[in-house]
Amino acid sequence: MIRAAIIGASGYSGEELVRLLLGHPKVALVAVTSRQKAGLALSRVFPRFAGLAAARGIRFLQSEPGGVLAALGADRKRAVVFLALPHGVAAEWAVPLVEAGVRVIDLSADFRLRSAVAYKEFYGHEHPAPALLEKAVYGLPELRGAEVRRARLVASPGCYPTSILVPLVPLLRAGLLKPDGLVIASLSGVSGAGRKVEETGLFCECHESMRAYGVPKHRHLSEIEQELTLAARRKVVVQFTPHLIPVNRGILTSIVAVPAKPVAKTAALIEASWARAYARSPFIRRLGADALPDTKNVVGTNFVEIACRVDPRTGRALIFSAEDNLTKGAAGQAVQSMNLMFGLPETEGLL
Amino acid sequence: MIRAAIIGASGYSGEELVRLLLGHPKVALVAVTSRQKAGLALSRVFPRFAGLAAARGIRFLQSEPGGVLAALGADRKRAVVFLALPHGVAAEWAVPLVEAGVRVIDLSADFRLRSAVAYKEFYGHEHPAPALLEKAVYGLPELRGAEVRRARLVASPGCYPTSILVPLVPLLRAGLLKPDGLVIASLSGVSGAGRKVEETGLFCECHESMRAYGVPKHRHLSEIEQELTLAARRKVVVQFTPHLIPVNRGILTSIVAVPAKPVAKTAALIEASWARAYARSPFIRRLGADALPDTKNVVGTNFVEIACRVDPRTGRALIFSAEDNLTKGAAGQAVQSMNLMFGLPETEGLL
Amino acid sequence: MIRAAIIGASGYSGEELVRLLLGHPKVALVAVTSRQKAGLALSRVFPRFAGLAAARGIRFLQSEPGGVLAALGADRKRAVVFLALPHGVAAEWAVPLVEAGVRVIDLSADFRLRSAVAYKEFYGHEHPAPALLEKAVYGLPELRGAEVRRARLVASPGCYPTSILVPLVPLLRAGLLKPDGLVIASLSGVSGAGRKVEETGLFCECHESMRAYGVPKHRHLSEIEQELTLAARRKVVVQFTPHLIPVNRGILTSIVAVPAKPVAKTAALIEASWARAYARSPFIRRLGADALPDTKNVVGTNFVEIACRVDPRTGRALIFSAEDNLTKGAAGQAVQSMNLMFGLPETEGLL
Amino acid sequence: MIRAAIIGASGYSGEELVRLLLGHPKVALVAVTSRQKAGLALSRVFPRFAGLAAARGIRFLQSEPGGVLAALGADRKRAVVFLALPHGVAAEWAVPLVEAGVRVIDLSADFRLRSAVAYKEFYGHEHPAPALLEKAVYGLPELRGAEVRRARLVASPGCYPTSILVPLVPLLRAGLLKPDGLVIASLSGVSGAGRKVEETGLFCECHESMRAYGVPKHRHLSEIEQELTLAARRKVVVQFTPHLIPVNRGILTSIVAVPAKPVAKTAALIEASWARAYARSPFIRRLGADALPDTKNVVGTNFVEIACRVDPRTGRALIFSAEDNLTKGAAGQAVQSMNLMFGLPETEGLL
Repeated sequence: MIRAAIIGASGYSGEELVRLLLGHPKVALVAVTSRQKAGLALSRVFPRFAGLAAARGIRFLQSEPGGVLAALGADRKRAVVFLALPHGVAAEWAVPLVEAGVRVIDLSADFRLRSAVAYKEFYGHEHPAPALLEKAVYGLPELRGAEVRRARLVASPGCYPTSILVPLVPLLRAGLLKPDGLVIASLSGVSGAGRKVEETGLFCECHESMRAYGVPKHRHLSEIEQELTLAARRKVVVQFTPHLIPVNRGILTSIVAVPAKPVAKTAALIEASWARAYARSPFIRRLGADALPDTKNVVGTNFVEIACRVDPRTGRALIFSAEDNLTKGAAGQAVQSMNLMFGLPETEGLL
Repeated sequence: MIRAAIIGASGYSGEELVRLLLGHPKVALVAVTSRQKAGLALSRVFPRFAGLAAARGIRFLQSEPGGVLAALGADRKRAVVFLALPHGVAAEWAVPLVEAGVRVIDLSADFRLRSAVAYKEFYGHEHPAPALLEKAVYGLPELRGAEVRRARLVASPGCYPTSILVPLVPLLRAGLLKPDGLVIASLSGVSGAGRKVEETGLFCECHESMRAYGVPKHRHLSEIEQELTLAARRKVVVQFTPHLIPVNRGILTSIVAVPAKPVAKTAALIEASWARAYARSPFIRRLGADALPDTKNVVGTNFVEIACRVDPRTGRALIFSAEDNLTKGAAGQAVQSMNLMFGLPETEGLL
Repeated sequence: MIRAAIIGASGYSGEELVRLLLGHPKVALVAVTSRQKAGLALSRVFPRFAGLAAARGIRFLQSEPGGVLAALGADRKRAVVFLALPHGVAAEWAVPLVEAGVRVIDLSADFRLRSAVAYKEFYGHEHPAPALLEKAVYGLPELRGAEVRRARLVASPGCYPTSILVPLVPLLRAGLLKPDGLVIASLSGVSGAGRKVEETGLFCECHESMRAYGVPKHRHLSEIEQELTLAARRKVVVQFTPHLIPVNRGILTSIVAVPAKPVAKTAALIEASWARAYARSPFIRRLGADALPDTKNVVGTNFVEIACRVDPRTGRALIFSAEDNLTKGAAGQAVQSMNLMFGLPETEGLL
Repeated sequence: MIRAAIIGASGYSGEELVRLLLGHPKVALVAVTSRQKAGLALSRVFPRFAGLAAARGIRFLQSEPGGVLAALGADRKRAVVFLALPHGVAAEWAVPLVEAGVRVIDLSADFRLRSAVAYKEFYGHEHPAPALLEKAVYGLPELRGAEVRRARLVASPGCYPTSILVPLVPLLRAGLLKPDGLVIASLSGVSGAGRKVEETGLFCECHESMRAYGVPKHRHLSEIEQELTLAARRKVVVQFTPHLIPVNRGILTSIVAVPAKPVAKTAALIEASWARAYARSPFIRRLGADALPDTKNVVGTNFVEIACRVDPRTGRALIFSAEDNLTKGAAGQAVQSMNLMFGLPETEGLL
């Protein structure tokens, strides 16, 4: 059994990690921490886990590395820590844990950017642990599976980036789309904003409301453009507009792109490219001509639905994806990376 | 008092028309029709209107022009008929009503296109009354107020077109945006699909769901492009992606456009253009730099919120709007046109 | 014109008061206060009011009686102050305002109970202004219209009490129901909890959730039982269970009662009693045998829907009501009382 | 492996059965039928199952017993058929299947009542297979586990009855509550009405709506009272009011009862009774004094949350439960019975 700890387990991503790890057949969840909930039983904070055998006896610990390492036990090779913390704080945690030899999967943004300069530009403070940046692997298993397998420190991608990179990266790698002029509209459920207690997150402020936010420079742009640039092998700058929608969970992304190949062949080329890239990716659901992605078909799962259409009137490609922001967009993806890091089947505990 | 009738009053747009006309101080609602509800009291079909004095005694009539004309009475100059019918059927109704001398406001698509050829392309059948096309005025009061005042037949714009034309037309007229490359993402509440009894409209199929639909060639494209082409004085083809969102009412539209003037000046030029164009438009709410449009601030009203941002990283303009699809996007706009046609203040019964 | 002020206008009831007063043809809203929003324009805090002529120039004032009285002007007979404040604070405001001779309508619980002892039992602190208790009128216009007309200080009833008292009081007065054994289940939308920024009010904590709360001794019980006791002319104790439901607005109440008259005649007797009691009450919508109350038919209005059924299997009467908790349950009812206090038609500004 | 078929798999209960059986480690789902969807791939009708290995190759069959028996194969002892059909139709299917020797679990009401007379009273037609009534076991595993283990035909309880019987039956058996005067209010998500395509089920008719329905004589009353009567060993008649609430899934039930023992001891007696009755019931979550049931903590699971409070003012016991109407209230409970019938751990495939 892998022994696992979650640091910062009281938020929505942390709670989803708890759910997945309690149900994972090869994992023992041995520690969860939270500054606010320290001392409370897991089943008190999250009544939905009461009655699960794996949850019995688990209490929130103080957030402190020594106690967590003690709980993980002596066999560091079978230990993993998930960091579900705000950026900045996560990096501080990562240092002693990586040194101690446990594997670390960070759900924050702290190790997603290769450049400490870009980090400062988008996150507004110096990177707390720049020396670790080159050790970190951007953990999108569908695109970096081999690296994830060998990683000691995984930077698990953000929810918006996952919904954008999964459909686009193979197409840019294959030169099917022009890297200029990408226009992306994403719609996110409210859990994407986390469990922050702010007026804008109140039920009556969100229900029966639709709004764009975070334009023109959302923080996730930095990792989106970093990865698209790597895929296209030239600088990519995208137009990205996130919207807040009154559902609990889910991201729907709509992308408009200019084909690099003859328009009439573009749909077939895209489908073929995806088929090749994701032939062995159990969580990628290609919808073909049957349907367009719908978040209700992926909520609670680690799947991403993708589909494309070509508009003969404009000559553009329309690319769509849907995912659960807390599962494939956060906790599920982190568990998927864990499976690879420990040599387990990629889908273990996720289907 | 204006005497008014609503043909096809049992759908969502028809119901919203009933609400507005019952509360309008200068209108007597004298007839509502519905094939399905004929014979039933208005307050039985719509319990929310029970107890309103103006609703007392109103029953649904059979949908038949003779009875409606009789109910409107002899003074045809003070009579108006709203058509809240499917396309095709509306045009058939319009012919005898226009001939009879009553004013007609059509909420369907039948008289929105100037070209019967384009109509056939997008709606799949011959136009039922092509001779009336040139008499009809595309009734967006903010953009065609003078024509609406003189009109006998108003084609009231669709919900998506209104949310797109209000922010864009002044900017294209003023040459502030390039007419090529417009990318539009619109999000609509479920009432936009009407009261059709279909599985896709069931609560559990929509709640906790987000999805794109109607790509790549939504019917509303025809009127959107017709009006944008007139504004730009050259052919405009847009990329338009509608999405279905689990709210009852509201449309949020996000537009990406390429500025035609220096980027650094674009935001100020756009604000100035809107300020000029809408200086006397009581329902246009310019948000400036304070906030982005949010449907919850316009639901139940005839307002449109608009705002722009310029993205210095991409050099593009981002344009947003929010409206209630049933009010400004349908019934409210129709009443606004009626006010103009009868020489009333534009806001009468709408504030 | 009546000159009106709202103290504590930044909550949901306060916002609804603003909406109603801005649209009221006989009222000039001259002051709104809020500790948190002092200095901000009304249209900045509530973008939905931007563009309304009546809202122009209104800024939130500091919450301080002197400034409010100054804004109301010299003619105290044409001035009214609405208190949309927490209990305890409201009573402190009422004292100088009543002394100054302006009419006061308090939406808090401070003047609803006739007994300062009961107040302390349910609200946990001494009543701040017991001398005013006997001056206050419990402002349910349908039941106390004559007193409200003469009142200088109206205690506007709570949302749950209104939904319970409107159907029950006439029946208890008429002796149609036994006063013992009343079992009441009420369902409330989330706005009933106010704009408090707490974790339990976050969108994701409420959406897709149903739960009872506040049992067995909700604070509103005190005024419910006080008024039912007066109606029955003997002590009434009820079983009351409130539930939180993921809608923005609305209360649905289901009551089980034991008929005091022969069961076979009870339905007709109840309908006749309501017909008599509410013959001149424009906001009471009796549904008879046609339908059961549905909050969607009253949301945004000042109406209360009521209906009864008799269960021949159990011999009990089932009584239902629906209202908007922010309108008839708070702000609308307060405006209705204001209309009576100033000799206006009861429905002015409310239909 | 158990070979399983689902008859009528295109409704919400059927879909939930598909979800559970596809994930069940000891079951091979070999046939699903639907008159409307016959011929279509399972993953086409339910895109959310696309990509699951267990779903590959499954197509909807015509609803016809011969084909289903053929698909189940020769070993009838390892075969089970779930009937997710309307009442009346289910009984007709049960006859040949039971004769053929396969185990049958019926999710309809057809075998829940012991009396064909009561069936006709509540369902309006003669029972189609009265001879099978005495073979059927009312499959509430927590209360009839031993019988379920031996059963060949299980009548799986309805959603409302489960939420009522789980908390009440042990208390009536133990004589802690008076069997008279039970008042029950239940709140159900919209999926409880099934996937019927009717106007009342449309998104805009349900969202922002709360309403009671089905009073005073809901069909589920028949099985509720049958089972409560058995528990109390005397005739029990209850007051039951169901309400429709805009959530997808979940039932919340609030019960008011008169204690049969001293009020001051009732809470402790109830807790002790539940502790005894459910000591070995893995899906019963007793909340004690910590919290009240909340549907969001049980949605998607087979758990039932229960809690009680005693109201010292009225002397009554308040009893609450929450469950997922499609899981514990339908498909999950059926799978739980299947586990018992085949000697598997009760929680197999359900945790």
